[in-house]
Amino acid sequence: MAEEPTQDPFPNGGPADGVVVYGGKTSRVVKVLWVCAELRVKAYHLPVMQQRSAAWFAAINPKKQVPAFKDGTLTLHESNTICHYLASKYGPETRAPDGTVSASNGGILPLTHEASAIASMWTEFAETTIAPAQNPVFFGLVRKGPVGCAASPTGEKLPGCPSDEQLRAHVLKLQQAWSIFNEALAGKDYVTGDRFTLGDVCAAVQANRLIRNNGFGCPELALDGFPHVVSWFSRVSARPAFQEQVAPYYS
Amino acid sequence: MAEEPTQDPFPNGGPADGVVVYGGKTSRVVKVLWVCAELRVKAYHLPVMQQRSAAWFAAINPKKQVPAFKDGTLTLHESNTICHYLASKYGPETRAPDGTVSASNGGILPLTHEASAIASMWTEFAETTIAPAQNPVFFGLVRKGPVGCAASPTGEKLPGCPSDEQLRAHVLKLQQAWSIFNEALAGKDYVTGDRFTLGDVCAAVQANRLIRNNGFGCPELALDGFPHVVSWFSRVSARPAFQEQVAPYYS
Repeated sequence: MAEEPTQDPFPNGGPADGVVVYGGKTSRVVKVLWVCAELRVKAYHLPVMQQRSAAWFAAINPKKQVPAFKDGTLTLHESNTICHYLASKYGPETRAPDGTVSASNGGILPLTHEASAIASMWTEFAETTIAPAQNPVFFGLVRKGPVGCAASPTGEKLPGCPSDEQLRAHVLKLQQAWSIFNEALAGKDYVTGDRFTLGDVCAAVQANRLIRNNGFGCPELALDGFPHVVSWFSRVSARPAFQEQVAPYYS
Repeated sequence: MAEEPTQDPFPNGGPADGVVVYGGKTSRVVKVLWVCAELRVKAYHLPVMQQRSAAWFAAINPKKQVPAFKDGTLTLHESNTICHYLASKYGPETRAPDGTVSASNGGILPLTHEASAIASMWTEFAETTIAPAQNPVFFGLVRKGPVGCAASPTGEKLPGCPSDEQLRAHVLKLQQAWSIFNEALAGKDYVTGDRFTLGDVCAAVQANRLIRNNGFGCPELALDGFPHVVSWFSRVSARPAFQEQVAPYYS
């Protein structure tokens, strides 16, 4: 793994030939890197972790969280916003003179207001409903530490890990969240219909943890309860950009 | 207040002359109604509260939360997504043949990718950083009940209200969140610069509670700590659509 920078290598705006993604490979950071890879946007990735609390990083993201992002003179934080910006600037669908809508050249942002809203809705749902329930379950049962900590080196629970009672409440919320998403995928290959879009990205990063950890061993999260999620994930996870950027981060 | 519907008055898609907003007037529902008012989009408002758990409403929003939304055959949940959809379909800025960017006709969605991303960033920040810290403070100190409950009729704390220790942690997070937003407003009239946009909406609904409750009486949230927020709020809250749709919902 590359070393953490101790100052901003791009203090005067991002490089001319790409964007800058600051952050160790959390679920939200790999989401941004995946979108860059889909769109063939060159990403300079800086693995900021401990340096989140450094003054130089707070000047980039006052929240002291990752990801942060630069494209030329534009600096952004908030992961869904960064993904939507990338998709709208570098990857909208296009309409040919004959009226055909195309997603060639990496286009992942739907052309119509309606399909774009559907994509946005599931992106927001994944970040504000799935992730807040799944993060404590993932950290409690896989990483065995408090949310945001590194993996427990011993396999024992670390101090600050959710209690069994807290985990139980999160598991039930998570079951509900995946059930809702499962129903939304019924009869569709992707969340907006027959084509991969930005709307699949945020949920797929979460599904990578659910499915590859086999429902975290919880009966309520057994994968046969979410058949549409499983088949959708098999399609989404086969994408080369997903395999490269997201697949390694399930444990 | 209008009565709650006990079935969907618009089962076959929204009416031809407007959109449908389902939900009692929570912070997220008034946000959507405010955007409709800014854009002169006619909103049929249905004050769903108890009926959130009814089958007819779950068919509209499987999360059983508000707001839910219809525009013709499109049904949406997720409040920021609904606002962005409204702004992109009914209220983008426009560029005249002479190159002038205009926000006439209610335009609140910035024309450039960069300004649109800035607006989106603070919208996401308000919903995922400000609101989760402020909701328990507002409900704990103003409504004196658990998040999402109605006001305490007696003025005493209701069961499920956050403990003093929990409140204290939320107050400190909230102080940090408003400080970050305060810095972002330094030297600007609105979050994207000199013009009101969608980027001001979500934070202003939260600021309505902070400012009109005088920092909830917490020293850490005293308003003189957030001078740019206060002056920005004086501009935003003067808008007729804000006065009509949001101003009444501070207590």
